[in-house]
Amino acid sequence: MSKKVAVIMGSDSDFPVVKSAVSELKKYGVETVCRVMSAHRTPAEAAEFASNAKAEGFGVIICAAGMAAHLAGVIAGHTTLPVIGIPMKSAALEGMDALLATVMMPPGVPVATVGINGAKNAAVLAVQMLAVSDDELAAKLADEKKKMAEGVIEKDKALQAEIEKL
Amino acid sequence: MSKKVAVIMGSDSDFPVVKSAVSELKKYGVETVCRVMSAHRTPAEAAEFASNAKAEGFGVIICAAGMAAHLAGVIAGHTTLPVIGIPMKSAALEGMDALLATVMMPPGVPVATVGINGAKNAAVLAVQMLAVSDDELAAKLADEKKKMAEGVIEKDKALQAEIEKL
Amino acid sequence: MSKKVAVIMGSDSDFPVVKSAVSELKKYGVETVCRVMSAHRTPAEAAEFASNAKAEGFGVIICAAGMAAHLAGVIAGHTTLPVIGIPMKSAALEGMDALLATVMMPPGVPVATVGINGAKNAAVLAVQMLAVSDDELAAKLADEKKKMAEGVIEKDKALQAEIEKL
Amino acid sequence: MSKKVAVIMGSDSDFPVVKSAVSELKKYGVETVCRVMSAHRTPAEAAEFASNAKAEGFGVIICAAGMAAHLAGVIAGHTTLPVIGIPMKSAALEGMDALLATVMMPPGVPVATVGINGAKNAAVLAVQMLAVSDDELAAKLADEKKKMAEGVIEKDKALQAEIEKL
Amino acid sequence: MSKKVAVIMGSDSDFPVVKSAVSELKKYGVETVCRVMSAHRTPAEAAEFASNAKAEGFGVIICAAGMAAHLAGVIAGHTTLPVIGIPMKSAALEGMDALLATVMMPPGVPVATVGINGAKNAAVLAVQMLAVSDDELAAKLADEKKKMAEGVIEKDKALQAEIEKL
Amino acid sequence: MSKKVAVIMGSDSDFPVVKSAVSELKKYGVETVCRVMSAHRTPAEAAEFASNAKAEGFGVIICAAGMAAHLAGVIAGHTTLPVIGIPMKSAALEGMDALLATVMMPPGVPVATVGINGAKNAAVLAVQMLAVSDDELAAKLADEKKKMAEGVIEKDKALQAEIEKL
Amino acid sequence: MSKKVAVIMGSDSDFPVVKSAVSELKKYGVETVCRVMSAHRTPAEAAEFASNAKAEGFGVIICAAGMAAHLAGVIAGHTTLPVIGIPMKSAALEGMDALLATVMMPPGVPVATVGINGAKNAAVLAVQMLAVSDDELAAKLADEKKKMAEGVIEKDKALQAEIEKL
Amino acid sequence: MSKKVAVIMGSDSDFPVVKSAVSELKKYGVETVCRVMSAHRTPAEAAEFASNAKAEGFGVIICAAGMAAHLAGVIAGHTTLPVIGIPMKSAALEGMDALLATVMMPPGVPVATVGINGAKNAAVLAVQMLAVSDDELAAKLADEKKKMAEGVIEKDKALQAEIEKL
Repeated sequence: MSKKVAVIMGSDSDFPVVKSAVSELKKYGVETVCRVMSAHRTPAEAAEFASNAKAEGFGVIICAAGMAAHLAGVIAGHTTLPVIGIPMKSAALEGMDALLATVMMPPGVPVATVGINGAKNAAVLAVQMLAVSDDELAAKLADEKKKMAEGVIEKDKALQAEIEKL
Repeated sequence: MSKKVAVIMGSDSDFPVVKSAVSELKKYGVETVCRVMSAHRTPAEAAEFASNAKAEGFGVIICAAGMAAHLAGVIAGHTTLPVIGIPMKSAALEGMDALLATVMMPPGVPVATVGINGAKNAAVLAVQMLAVSDDELAAKLADEKKKMAEGVIEKDKALQAEIEKL
Repeated sequence: MSKKVAVIMGSDSDFPVVKSAVSELKKYGVETVCRVMSAHRTPAEAAEFASNAKAEGFGVIICAAGMAAHLAGVIAGHTTLPVIGIPMKSAALEGMDALLATVMMPPGVPVATVGINGAKNAAVLAVQMLAVSDDELAAKLADEKKKMAEGVIEKDKALQAEIEKL
Repeated sequence: MSKKVAVIMGSDSDFPVVKSAVSELKKYGVETVCRVMSAHRTPAEAAEFASNAKAEGFGVIICAAGMAAHLAGVIAGHTTLPVIGIPMKSAALEGMDALLATVMMPPGVPVATVGINGAKNAAVLAVQMLAVSDDELAAKLADEKKKMAEGVIEKDKALQAEIEKL
Repeated sequence: MSKKVAVIMGSDSDFPVVKSAVSELKKYGVETVCRVMSAHRTPAEAAEFASNAKAEGFGVIICAAGMAAHLAGVIAGHTTLPVIGIPMKSAALEGMDALLATVMMPPGVPVATVGINGAKNAAVLAVQMLAVSDDELAAKLADEKKKMAEGVIEKDKALQAEIEKL
Repeated sequence: MSKKVAVIMGSDSDFPVVKSAVSELKKYGVETVCRVMSAHRTPAEAAEFASNAKAEGFGVIICAAGMAAHLAGVIAGHTTLPVIGIPMKSAALEGMDALLATVMMPPGVPVATVGINGAKNAAVLAVQMLAVSDDELAAKLADEKKKMAEGVIEKDKALQAEIEKL
Repeated sequence: MSKKVAVIMGSDSDFPVVKSAVSELKKYGVETVCRVMSAHRTPAEAAEFASNAKAEGFGVIICAAGMAAHLAGVIAGHTTLPVIGIPMKSAALEGMDALLATVMMPPGVPVATVGINGAKNAAVLAVQMLAVSDDELAAKLADEKKKMAEGVIEKDKALQAEIEKL
Repeated sequence: MSKKVAVIMGSDSDFPVVKSAVSELKKYGVETVCRVMSAHRTPAEAAEFASNAKAEGFGVIICAAGMAAHLAGVIAGHTTLPVIGIPMKSAALEGMDALLATVMMPPGVPVATVGINGAKNAAVLAVQMLAVSDDELAAKLADEKKKMAEGVIEKDKALQAEIEKL
């Protein structure tokens, strides 16, 4: 049976963006646990969760945090599971703070960083990681990739009508 | 048997940095293939490689590129394997160009981005991905994590002698 | 007869900005084809289009994309036609990501980059390229340049009335 | 007969970088004129040169300047020829100042901007522009593109020996 | 009699910000001429204006422009009068483009740059320049400085009531 | 008796910069403990140290870290002592990554951030914090402030000789 | 008895953000004085206030300012008390200007900088500084830290219901 | 007789850059006083100097400072003379910190900012300010402008020989 994915966010205010990661994971039928945990406000809970995650059947941990976004790095310090970081855009600096605080990890403790507010991509990346050894998931990914291409081709056709109007 | 890892760089001038990814993968006993391929100069080769990578036994693809670093994104467009991007620092802009060109991928096509020149971390992340379903690799990762901690503790002790001299 | 210009965008959500490129090209009577194609979601279509563009009578290709904007670079990898890149501003980073991902191309594969959201300028630049060997287009450009100057002079006059009111 | 290309730099201190544009143009057999002219120190000369360039047989003007790099924009204000801007890296800000000062042109007056210190690419782009209506040049470009790909493939092979040594 | 001040803007869309420069200059009784002129669209008019400004009784020229803001630099190239640059914030990059394009001038051709959208400060700076040799203006400046301090002190008092409510 | 100050660095490679914090603290006679601890490599040690620091007589904790500098934030999550963060400049991005990762803390968990590589200032700030309730330290600070001013005045005098030579 | 805290802002327009610092300080029962003073418009008042602050029973000074935010640095130049700087986001540059102008202080004159618009954190940091020698305040901080953790845990529970709905 | 110019630097370590301002002023025969004064370390001296500068015959004050460069702003707070700011590049951030801390002044207290390390331009700008009412200086400026143009034209000629060698 496939491993579970954890989706952790540093604050529940991140949920409107992060929920698309949860929805995407459900689309692939991946068992998902979603949590609010803070590297700074509940560090013990975060450390404990990360330390036990592998034993409890998680395969990947997704962490979303903004500003001085330490959550993904802190989680990565307590597990050998791959950790995916979603840098959240917040009130200032356009998300650049969270991006740098997430991606520039020191040697030995990587965080697989996706784009600013990239919740959907974090989910797809988690599925890709699980699919390395899960052919069913891999087939679903290939299927979605095909649909995505078809969607673009459809939009390309729809555009031609718009062009006529110019 | 575990999947192979591909390490692709956009230019052979990236090798002095990228080779630490290869060494790290070898340390874990992961079969590694290292290639020079360019999203812009050999796009057909890159597309073909990515399209066939899964079938040829690769589990993860690491891509290193600088400036308008398109390699990881282009490879990710042709495979459902997880793709890790290493943004390379080049002659201007301190690597910020490569970081943004690697990490800010559109929905549906993620690149797992590590820090600027983060070759070692790309390798560790690849091993973490393979280890999701490979207990032996996971054990090696746990072992390395322990050694890393011991290394810091040793340096902490060594520092005390330096402090005395101040 | 003059060559055609292709205007490609990575997503149909770019159209509200990109359409001013199409309108501008029509103003000059340049035959224009407008397409949605993605470097990451329909890479094969993009590669094929670019590879055939010269043979199909295109003289210039304009590419608009946001975030890790690879479209222009990928197209440029498959053609010897001049490729113009429009970096699109998206939800974060004020367009800086798209600008750097478009302009910082490696030696041998240039992208003629215009300003962020600079759709009109992409069109004017395309016309200027065609006009290198097309005197009629060149005359139209000179005419527009004159009108543009007259427009500024008119606005300068209109301003004087506003100043009186201060 | 093919049009000439002008390569203008704002200061002769730019020459060590800019000269690779001149060499590249010569490789394609394009007649090239190289000048030092300043938007701020010899504005009259620059304006006069740009105003007459088309009549004197130029097809494209390349401008290299650093810091508040106005040269390309000023030249573009006086001609309908396509103008290519090379933002030069100087003592501070890693070339970001020159990049923004070159690329962010107002509607109606584009500058085809290449990467920071991208002198070779400016030349290739100029040749691509001339080649829109010059089949011989287009053939040379296709030839160079092929050689460039072969160069990468060769380096890919050479790398394998290096890998063995790790 | 005191010299005149010119306030030039690159586009009439800058007027809502720039008009506070005009109002401020009027407050000091400085004769002000306000113009729309573009470094790129009416370069000849701009060059002529700048070349004649000193002879026509101007003492200072204020230039407001956004994006690749060349106006102040171009004007400065044609006059020995002090030129003040106002970098305008526009649709992308938060005004950073205009700031760098205005302030990073090459040796010998300075632009006295104020903050982004700093129209009022441009006017005050112009008055300070004129006041170097005009005691009446200097007295007005000293008077305004005093009023400004009193304004802050008044607001400090008014704040105390607000604090009580917290 | 005055409280102790801890100086923690994420890597012993930070010591050449950080040691000036230790020297400065010694100058003020403040008891100082200097440690290497990593938020990512020895997170348990770091958490334990921070949790016990107050009880063990520490008054202030200084943390120096580079890149995705999480150390200060992580320490601050485990203590109510004031935590001072020194963002370290490392191989890319000029220290901007460490600055943002240190200073942009979420509400409730501040880090008192000093400038990039600002080791001396971290020490002075720690002494200022201790001096809030320690008149002897406060007197030393006042004394140093006076010496600092005298040093500038001396350098001002020494400069006059240099000026003569120009 | 505990020392007072001063909260100074450069302009009363900062009050909507800054008032949360005042509220937070009141929550801890810290005597707070709130002032509008400007480094540039009322420099004498600011210098006088800072010079006397220690003698008048202040223990910490919080300074909020935007743009070229000099207030904290100027206050720090006139006192040996710890000075906390709040960089305010203003109309351009997303607060980066104020952050750099506040944090990058020269050796010997630190400003304890918090995040952009980080008014609450400035207050918490001030309380932490006072609590170094005030056990009652320290107990309140520990209590708040516990509540903060409980708040996150509560939100974590509340989130689970939201997840069910996806 | 013409007014004097003061050149103030925040640290004598700025002198190697700043001295070119002094040399340039001497070239124009402007009486120049050069001082080391710090907004943070000798604030009283700086305030006093600025307050008396007008009365002591100064017409313009040039201030050079790096990092959180407050010197120019602080001086401007104490005088109605025009103040020119030179942002100095220092060990991190490429001078961006000093640029923003110098130029982004609040309404009513402008600093005429030149480019990073732009010492020569600060001097030229100061001369331009004095020349508003000093025809002899204005003539010298016109003369230098002419020489500067001739210098460029000479370099343009010299370049042609270089080109031949390529």
